[in-house]
Amino acid sequence: MAEATRDPFVESRHLGAAVIAGPEGVRHAWGDPERVILPRSAVKMIQALPLVVSGAADAAGLGPEHLALACASHQGAEMHTRRVADWLAALGLSEADLRCGPQWPADRAARDALIRAEAAPSQLHNNCSGKHAGMLTLARHLGAGPEYHLPDHPVQVACREAFEAVTGAPSPGYGIDGCALPNFAGRLDRIAQAMAWFATAQTRDDAESRAAARLVAAMTAHPELVAGEGRACTDLMRAGGGRVAVKTGAEGVFTAILPEAGLGVALKIADGATRAADCAVTALLVRLGALSAEDPAVAARLEAPIRNRRGDTVGHIRPAPDLRA
Amino acid sequence: MAEATRDPFVESRHLGAAVIAGPEGVRHAWGDPERVILPRSAVKMIQALPLVVSGAADAAGLGPEHLALACASHQGAEMHTRRVADWLAALGLSEADLRCGPQWPADRAARDALIRAEAAPSQLHNNCSGKHAGMLTLARHLGAGPEYHLPDHPVQVACREAFEAVTGAPSPGYGIDGCALPNFAGRLDRIAQAMAWFATAQTRDDAESRAAARLVAAMTAHPELVAGEGRACTDLMRAGGGRVAVKTGAEGVFTAILPEAGLGVALKIADGATRAADCAVTALLVRLGALSAEDPAVAARLEAPIRNRRGDTVGHIRPAPDLRA
Repeated sequence: MAEATRDPFVESRHLGAAVIAGPEGVRHAWGDPERVILPRSAVKMIQALPLVVSGAADAAGLGPEHLALACASHQGAEMHTRRVADWLAALGLSEADLRCGPQWPADRAARDALIRAEAAPSQLHNNCSGKHAGMLTLARHLGAGPEYHLPDHPVQVACREAFEAVTGAPSPGYGIDGCALPNFAGRLDRIAQAMAWFATAQTRDDAESRAAARLVAAMTAHPELVAGEGRACTDLMRAGGGRVAVKTGAEGVFTAILPEAGLGVALKIADGATRAADCAVTALLVRLGALSAEDPAVAARLEAPIRNRRGDTVGHIRPAPDLRA
Repeated sequence: MAEATRDPFVESRHLGAAVIAGPEGVRHAWGDPERVILPRSAVKMIQALPLVVSGAADAAGLGPEHLALACASHQGAEMHTRRVADWLAALGLSEADLRCGPQWPADRAARDALIRAEAAPSQLHNNCSGKHAGMLTLARHLGAGPEYHLPDHPVQVACREAFEAVTGAPSPGYGIDGCALPNFAGRLDRIAQAMAWFATAQTRDDAESRAAARLVAAMTAHPELVAGEGRACTDLMRAGGGRVAVKTGAEGVFTAILPEAGLGVALKIADGATRAADCAVTALLVRLGALSAEDPAVAARLEAPIRNRRGDTVGHIRPAPDLRA
C-alpha cells in the first residue's frame, strides 16, 4: 500500500488491502478484498445512521454540525469540545454521562492549555465524544438506560443492525473500540460496498438513504469538525470541495464516499499504520478523480516528506505505484 | 514478528526479519537474514567505537555515564540533558555546537516544564544529544572541524570504517538519520554478527574489543541513561540484571548483545513499528534465557495490553509464536 524511504533506500513497507466498490460490488481490489477487519472509526457514519433514521436527531433539533461531530474522530480542540458540551447540556446531560473515557487532546493548543492549568483531560476531549453524544441522544429517544456503550444496549443493537444492513451480511462479531463501544467486524469489500451505498444515497428516497445523504452532506460541509486542523480527513475533504467524504479509523483503516461517481472505498493497512492509510487513500482518490494531485494538501500526502530534526527532507512516504496508476 | 489483537480478532500483523548470530555467523533466522536495513539508533554502540578506540574518550576523561549517553536514545529527561550540557561545558562547547536539531522530549516532566515555561526544546533534548556530544569529543581529539555531521567529516568516516569493520563488509550506502548523521546500511545478519562481536569482546584484548567491552559495560551499568523511565531499553536491561545490552532504533529495529552466551541479535520490523520490535526482541531474549518471562517488565512486553480509554484491556500485542518457542 505504501513505503517509507530514507533516500536512497526504501526503509519500511506497508502491506494491506484496498477495495473500490459500486453499490453492486467490487470494481477494483488490491490484496484480499474478503479480509475481515475491524473498521474502527472509519464507519462512524454507519454508527450514526440509527440516530437519524430513528427520528432522534430531528427530535433533539440536531443540525449538520451535530451530525458531523457524530461521525467525527476530532482532536479535542475547543471548537469540538465546546459544541459537544453544549449538545449534552441541551439534552440536560453532562460530561459525566459519556462512557468513552478521557483522552489527551491531539489539538496542541487544547493540550497545552490543560498542561498549563495542571488539569486532566475530560471525556469531552475524547476523539469520539461527538459519536457518544449522538448515542446519548438516541438512548434518550428510545427511552433506554444510561449504559449505552454495552453491546446489548438498544443503541448498540441498532448500530449492529445498521452495520449488517448496509454491509449486507451478518457481522462475525466485535472487538471493543478505544472508546469502549463494540466495533463490529466485517469484510473489507462489503464495507467498501456500504460506502458506495452512502455515495448513492441521494438518488433514493427510503428513510435510511435519506439519513445517509444527510450524514454525508454534514461531513463534507464541516470537514473541520470531522477531524481538525492539519488532519488527513479535514484536509482531504476540503481539497475535495464537497465531492468526497472520507473517514479514518485506528489501526490503518480509511473509507471514502464519492457521491458523483457513486463509488465507495475502504482500505486496511495490515500493520495498522496511519501514515500508510493516509497516503494510500489519497492515491486512490486521485486515481478516481475526486482529488487533484496538484492541490498542495493532496500533494503533501501523496509524497509526504520525512524530515530530520534540522528540518531537512531525508525521505518520503509514497503510495504503491499501482494504487495511483 | 508480532500481532495486535482486539479480542477475539487479530487486528493487525507485523512482518519482519530477525537473526540470532554468534561471532562466526547466523545461528537462527526468521524472514530474510540478508535483507539490507538502515539500522538507525540500534547501532549507536558501533558509532561510539571510534570515540573510545581513538583515545578521545580517555583524553576527555569520559566515564561510563558518558559512554552510556553516547550509545543512548534518551528521552530528554533532566538527568539526560543536564549530563550532556555538563559534558559539552567541560569541552568548552555548548548546545549551539550540536548539529542534531531540536526535539520535543519524550519525558513527560521535561515536556510539560517546557510547555509551562512557553519554551521551545533545545538540541540537548534531542534523543541523540549524547551521541553527538561523543562525536564533538572525537572531532576535537582529531583536530577536525565543527561540521561533524557531514558524511565526509573525519568523525563520520571513522564511524563508517567502524561499521564496515564490525559487520565485515562494505556498506552499500547511507540514509540521513533523524539527527542529521549518515546512517550506514547493512545486512541484518551482519549486524547481528557485529552484536555477537560486541558480546564476545571481553574475551579479546585488541583495542577495538576492549572499547566494545567498555561500551557494553557502560550500557548495562546505566540503563536509565540509554533510554529512560518506562522505555523498553531501560526496562529490559534492568530486567536482565547486566546480562544483556539492548538498543532500539527507529523504524522497528532492535539489537541485543548477550555476553554470557556470546550471541548477538538484530531484528527489523518491515513496516517500522516500534511496538512490534519491542515485543519481538523481548520474545527472543526470553527464548535465549537472558530474560525471565516471569519478570513483570518482561511479561508486560511479551503480552502488552491494549487498553481502551476507560482503562479496560481489550487486546494485546503478542510475539509470533515461533519466536518464543
